[in-house]
Amino acid sequence: MIRYWTAGESHGKGHIALLDSLPAGLTVDKAYIDSELRRRQGGYGRGGRQKIETDEVEVLTGVWHDVTIGSPIVLWVKNRDYKINDMPDLTAPRPGHGDLAGMVKYHTGIRPILERASARGTTAVVAAGALAKLLLAEFDICTVAYVVSIGELSLEKKKVANDGLVASPCEANDTAKKIIEWRNKSEFYSLCPDRDAEAKRLVDQCRENGGTLGGIVEVRVDGVPFGLGTHAQWDLKLDGRLAQAAMAVQSVKGVEIGAGFQSARQFGQDVHDPIMFDADQWNTRSFGFSRTSNNAGGIEAGMTNSEPIIIRAALKPIATLQAALPSVDWKTMQPTTASYERSDVCAVPAASVVLEAVVALEIATVLTEKFGSDSVEEMKAFYRSFGKIAKQRFFRK
Amino acid sequence: MIRYWTAGESHGKGHIALLDSLPAGLTVDKAYIDSELRRRQGGYGRGGRQKIETDEVEVLTGVWHDVTIGSPIVLWVKNRDYKINDMPDLTAPRPGHGDLAGMVKYHTGIRPILERASARGTTAVVAAGALAKLLLAEFDICTVAYVVSIGELSLEKKKVANDGLVASPCEANDTAKKIIEWRNKSEFYSLCPDRDAEAKRLVDQCRENGGTLGGIVEVRVDGVPFGLGTHAQWDLKLDGRLAQAAMAVQSVKGVEIGAGFQSARQFGQDVHDPIMFDADQWNTRSFGFSRTSNNAGGIEAGMTNSEPIIIRAALKPIATLQAALPSVDWKTMQPTTASYERSDVCAVPAASVVLEAVVALEIATVLTEKFGSDSVEEMKAFYRSFGKIAKQRFFRK
Amino acid sequence: MIRYWTAGESHGKGHIALLDSLPAGLTVDKAYIDSELRRRQGGYGRGGRQKIETDEVEVLTGVWHDVTIGSPIVLWVKNRDYKINDMPDLTAPRPGHGDLAGMVKYHTGIRPILERASARGTTAVVAAGALAKLLLAEFDICTVAYVVSIGELSLEKKKVANDGLVASPCEANDTAKKIIEWRNKSEFYSLCPDRDAEAKRLVDQCRENGGTLGGIVEVRVDGVPFGLGTHAQWDLKLDGRLAQAAMAVQSVKGVEIGAGFQSARQFGQDVHDPIMFDADQWNTRSFGFSRTSNNAGGIEAGMTNSEPIIIRAALKPIATLQAALPSVDWKTMQPTTASYERSDVCAVPAASVVLEAVVALEIATVLTEKFGSDSVEEMKAFYRSFGKIAKQRFFRK
Amino acid sequence: MIRYWTAGESHGKGHIALLDSLPAGLTVDKAYIDSELRRRQGGYGRGGRQKIETDEVEVLTGVWHDVTIGSPIVLWVKNRDYKINDMPDLTAPRPGHGDLAGMVKYHTGIRPILERASARGTTAVVAAGALAKLLLAEFDICTVAYVVSIGELSLEKKKVANDGLVASPCEANDTAKKIIEWRNKSEFYSLCPDRDAEAKRLVDQCRENGGTLGGIVEVRVDGVPFGLGTHAQWDLKLDGRLAQAAMAVQSVKGVEIGAGFQSARQFGQDVHDPIMFDADQWNTRSFGFSRTSNNAGGIEAGMTNSEPIIIRAALKPIATLQAALPSVDWKTMQPTTASYERSDVCAVPAASVVLEAVVALEIATVLTEKFGSDSVEEMKAFYRSFGKIAKQRFFRK
Repeated sequence: MIRYWTAGESHGKGHIALLDSLPAGLTVDKAYIDSELRRRQGGYGRGGRQKIETDEVEVLTGVWHDVTIGSPIVLWVKNRDYKINDMPDLTAPRPGHGDLAGMVKYHTGIRPILERASARGTTAVVAAGALAKLLLAEFDICTVAYVVSIGELSLEKKKVANDGLVASPCEANDTAKKIIEWRNKSEFYSLCPDRDAEAKRLVDQCRENGGTLGGIVEVRVDGVPFGLGTHAQWDLKLDGRLAQAAMAVQSVKGVEIGAGFQSARQFGQDVHDPIMFDADQWNTRSFGFSRTSNNAGGIEAGMTNSEPIIIRAALKPIATLQAALPSVDWKTMQPTTASYERSDVCAVPAASVVLEAVVALEIATVLTEKFGSDSVEEMKAFYRSFGKIAKQRFFRK
Repeated sequence: MIRYWTAGESHGKGHIALLDSLPAGLTVDKAYIDSELRRRQGGYGRGGRQKIETDEVEVLTGVWHDVTIGSPIVLWVKNRDYKINDMPDLTAPRPGHGDLAGMVKYHTGIRPILERASARGTTAVVAAGALAKLLLAEFDICTVAYVVSIGELSLEKKKVANDGLVASPCEANDTAKKIIEWRNKSEFYSLCPDRDAEAKRLVDQCRENGGTLGGIVEVRVDGVPFGLGTHAQWDLKLDGRLAQAAMAVQSVKGVEIGAGFQSARQFGQDVHDPIMFDADQWNTRSFGFSRTSNNAGGIEAGMTNSEPIIIRAALKPIATLQAALPSVDWKTMQPTTASYERSDVCAVPAASVVLEAVVALEIATVLTEKFGSDSVEEMKAFYRSFGKIAKQRFFRK
Repeated sequence: MIRYWTAGESHGKGHIALLDSLPAGLTVDKAYIDSELRRRQGGYGRGGRQKIETDEVEVLTGVWHDVTIGSPIVLWVKNRDYKINDMPDLTAPRPGHGDLAGMVKYHTGIRPILERASARGTTAVVAAGALAKLLLAEFDICTVAYVVSIGELSLEKKKVANDGLVASPCEANDTAKKIIEWRNKSEFYSLCPDRDAEAKRLVDQCRENGGTLGGIVEVRVDGVPFGLGTHAQWDLKLDGRLAQAAMAVQSVKGVEIGAGFQSARQFGQDVHDPIMFDADQWNTRSFGFSRTSNNAGGIEAGMTNSEPIIIRAALKPIATLQAALPSVDWKTMQPTTASYERSDVCAVPAASVVLEAVVALEIATVLTEKFGSDSVEEMKAFYRSFGKIAKQRFFRK
Repeated sequence: MIRYWTAGESHGKGHIALLDSLPAGLTVDKAYIDSELRRRQGGYGRGGRQKIETDEVEVLTGVWHDVTIGSPIVLWVKNRDYKINDMPDLTAPRPGHGDLAGMVKYHTGIRPILERASARGTTAVVAAGALAKLLLAEFDICTVAYVVSIGELSLEKKKVANDGLVASPCEANDTAKKIIEWRNKSEFYSLCPDRDAEAKRLVDQCRENGGTLGGIVEVRVDGVPFGLGTHAQWDLKLDGRLAQAAMAVQSVKGVEIGAGFQSARQFGQDVHDPIMFDADQWNTRSFGFSRTSNNAGGIEAGMTNSEPIIIRAALKPIATLQAALPSVDWKTMQPTTASYERSDVCAVPAASVVLEAVVALEIATVLTEKFGSDSVEEMKAFYRSFGKIAKQRFFRK
């Protein structure tokens, strides 16, 4: 079963991901990983750091002729801006950051905390997530994340329903692969490229005010088979694991699956997704089952139900503010304003890349939990075998 | 460090929680655990099962003369309604439940899945959570959960701000202990007892329509010291762990911390919580630091910042509907409507008891991560020692 | 993947094992579990407690009509001798027990420590191990443990080699199933029933002297396929996990795999096991490969190599001695002799039952790591699929 | 609590260790880590590779001005001999290696398996262990490993008892620090430098015969306080964890703690270590308690008892043999002899460095389990606080 951890500081030598138990036989497409790293650096609203760094992955371990061998894989994204030992400490902890809690907990200054807590650490996650997506692609599982709002501005794709919102050329039944195309047309990684101009005005205005912006990201996973995760033990439930992964991303303060908070306001009849079956629609993923809605977001009782997984994450505005907030100088213990470190105005597009990565990592993990993690070829054979068992069961009628 | 798992089926012999590494020296107050179990059974909107069961805990292991001894503790809540082997299988998987995904995954019928997935399994969690709260009480940490909405009906407590909502006698600066008093006056476990009548009408109406209702629960933890959790590794971040614990509770489809989704719509200046310091306010928890707002919900960068922890969870309406939804008979593979099992109309009050439990368990866990889990006396000594170090640091100015 | 934990005190209500992620579809044969519990109670050399208890398992959760359903399983072995609250504390910690370390660590008296540390806790392990063996039996994997020495007395089975020792009717190439038959003929659970009389004299003599005896146990697992465990990460290596499981059994002070300590004295040429292949000997376990010796004990580089797994564990003599050793009265801090609790003279036969259990649990765990843990039927399909892949590979020549 | 994993292949870019939750405030002494790496490369009996590599650590993450900051630490030991993609596959799996099991399990050739399974991977472990030892040094805990036999040749230090063996100038009551001095005088890392000549003759003779040699290593840890590990849950017991760590080291086939296998042959009266107390000998480690023998090897019931920890590990002879053993060509499936890769004759001295490392890592882990892992300063304060509690308890008499 896949496990992963990261390491690295913002101005340290670089960021590292160690992925354990990735199956053998997966071609490591460095160009794809790099393109994901570059996508993380892009998106409208980024600050000066992105001009300094052009992130690139180096695969330090776990491959032979660019193919995985079942060994742990270490991915390294070097920092060009390596100067941690020249960086001064901060005098005043910044609200919204881990500065104060961290310096108290670890008995350090602020610098050591912010260097690790920095969202630059997500480079390692993005690189690891790219590997997970390469594995998922072998099973026709496709993960895509896109921005659905920046601050108050909605960038929702067109809804099928009655709200008349036609902001996106993206249709409700577009698959993740198609959605990726739309998303890649937008500088905000949204599905509404024609609203980019409006969003830019919002960001530019905010920058002038010395402020920052948050937003909401949706992640969708297509092609997930039945029965990943479980209902049987709390720490193995897939919804819980996805929530952990998403909430642990910098700035995320809310996570919902499927209709999420909206479903709390509705009646049961309007929320739960009717079950259909059509033997002619047999495939290894759904076995011919389908739903007429997907308010569950593809997960019932902590397990996948073969519908697309839908997760949303809310990101607070970046905590690093030019318009500095009240704080305390921890050397003098006198009131002051928070220190300021170079930062972006809006990192929601970048965060969408990170959220896509962490979701892909969780899905890849539960996939290996069910189908083993020894080799891609074996996993595929087990997956087919799983389908055959189901076919015998539901088609012998 | 505390670990816990549960077991049990809805009509099996009972529900079990195994808690590992709870410190020695904690008095196990059975009456308190039972009162929490009874609270879980209460709340307006429950169905017939609650009349059959009067849940009571039996402590099977881990105590000597009612005091913990550092051994794993097994809590058992017996089912009076033990008849699992007389329960028939279901013919049609119920939308919103794990029936379909589970029977495919585990190669079973529906009965074995629903028996484990049933929300009755939360009895074990509530019992375990009560133990966690007894431990937290030794450190003056108090967890309280309350319902803030049922369907469309808001039961929010009075806001300090400008929205004019004065639904609750509960003041913004009331502590968790005071809040518990207010909550215990309401049949919906909300902070607005005077809105109970309105909520009852909503539930009764819904029952007549054969429907079900969800809602939103807020959990608040007072008295948490600095530095629980960490920013340093994704799987140890407290926000991620809380999100996992909450999302893994039956029916939860959304989780937010502090201002959550709302913060995604605001500017940074309005979200992040200014830092104050007052040496005269020194105490072991906050060391004299405070905030003028708490939009972070007590957690920054995955660590506690000594402010109250605030989490919200959105619960979808119960999936067991009298007004049955379309499904498939899995013996004939022909269309039918979903099977119906006895159920409640609205379990949000009960879920608030469960959410209080899982949050308490996570906080107790990170507390033992920092202060060890050998004995309550030692943990207290370590806590005091932590305070002394901070005092030397911030007060020698 | 299977996980398990235990709970319970020697004079508490009973002993509990919680097994997580055991696959669905396994018939829980209570009679078999009970027979293993009774076997643990038997063996020559036990004390008075075994006359008080006749251990029997109660399955509290995880089954429907006696078949597993993928839910966590709780096994409970009640203590008839439940009187923990009537048991006095001890005044003097007993050398060889956890009394002193535990009372210091947990800030308790001695009673709370010894109640949990007692080898009676292995009842839970034996019950859990019986379930694991039932699962392994579905894959024709058979685990057997037998005593190979008591104190200085060797009870080794006949060796093929040149040492002339012909103590056992058991042949070197007997399978585990055959070996079980021999073992069950001996009151010492050895493979030399005709040496029982000699062993009894040894034990009886020791009892008269107020002493205790240890010994060595061998565990053998037949039918294990290739590739369980891994070489790739230290905490996943099967040899390490087996060593942990065995060393964590009460009284075990040494563990070796295959030729173990003996191999440290030999030259490489004489240790490593030559590889043979015979296409006519194809089977799903070994794919036609075999070895002319098994000094590796079935594990190379942390993975199974399809040969029988062979592990030995050394048990120190029981630490509870009538002939009491020097100690300290912890109330007065004055020298005294160690307190005495009722005990056995020799628990090596009983420990062999426990070691068989913990080894079976580890093998079952790595089996579910490779073939999933959702249902027995699916695991079998995956196992066959694994064999087909290998066959295509090694037989297309 | 400390966690660690490694990565890397023998001819890959290098070897990596990721250490999580090492406390802040520890000075990372690169010179010390490098000296440990060089020690691993030394010892009589090594092959050609050691002349190619001069291992040196690079700290990639987790430090600021060479001091730990609570972040995960990545240690990198580069391979000069990086040429994995130029290395051919092997045709015949080598007995004693993971070649056959690995290629079947992972569906690869042999090269990908041996590259990861290679003992060169222990460089990462040695680097990580050096960090653990630096942490332990802050608590006056000292770990030392030394070779006690090579093949049949005993290199045991002088025994106090009656066997007349006076091979070492090292006295029985020498502390670990003193022992290190003796060990560093021997080219075999034994405590008998005057037997080096004899050992060399043995190794040289073996090399001429195309053979390899194993041996036995003892690890001793001085200064360990009471109460690390636990008796309460099997997977947390320190003896089990040490056994896992040691057995997972390449070539280890046996592990024993204290008197180990020897204790299985003795009577209880002769094995268990009498408890003494002397208030004048008070110190934070032992609280004045002592033992007149240490057959338990410092661990009773899975917990430290403040005596030195003593572990032995048996290493089989290196499996890479010039005198090749029978095997099978996996392309043709015809009999052949095993492929040969460059190798050492005897790696027991090197393995002693690795065993010292893994033991130190486990002790550091349980130390952080008890005293937290936030900062060295805090851990020390907690340790002192633990001592104060014990003092109040045992000295108020």
